[in-house]
Amino acid sequence: MATVEIEYCVPCGMLDRALTVEEAILQQFADDLDRVSLVMGDHGIFVVRVDDEVVFDKEEDGFDVDEIVRRVRSQLSA
Amino acid sequence: MATVEIEYCVPCGMLDRALTVEEAILQQFADDLDRVSLVMGDHGIFVVRVDDEVVFDKEEDGFDVDEIVRRVRSQLSA
Repeated sequence: MATVEIEYCVPCGMLDRALTVEEAILQQFADDLDRVSLVMGDHGIFVVRVDDEVVFDKEEDGFDVDEIVRRVRSQLSA
Repeated sequence: MATVEIEYCVPCGMLDRALTVEEAILQQFADDLDRVSLVMGDHGIFVVRVDDEVVFDKEEDGFDVDEIVRRVRSQLSA
């Protein structure tokens, strides 16, 4: 079973985004996962990892929950 | 910095409760924490741990978000 991490910038107020992504991932993949962790970060970070593999990084892509879910799905089935 | 785990029963549909508790904890203590993890569980489990120390267990207490936040606070300052 896999683990997902969502590292988000606390001072930037990204908790709501992190919770939205976490909820979307858990609604789809709870049966395939051990845990989903929200990791406290700063300096504008918003990164989603599946088993330590980055699948989304705000520095490279626009924020899109459906796209993040698609990438988690493909990483889980890789 | 501390870590918090919220283990909840996935088949019982407790995701919303877990997210509510996680949000309340992060709104209060994000600066004192490394991470908050939602851990997939079953058989009716709903347990909150701070650094592996159980501070709330649904088997022993009624579900009360404010009380859970109080217990996390006292565990963090222990």
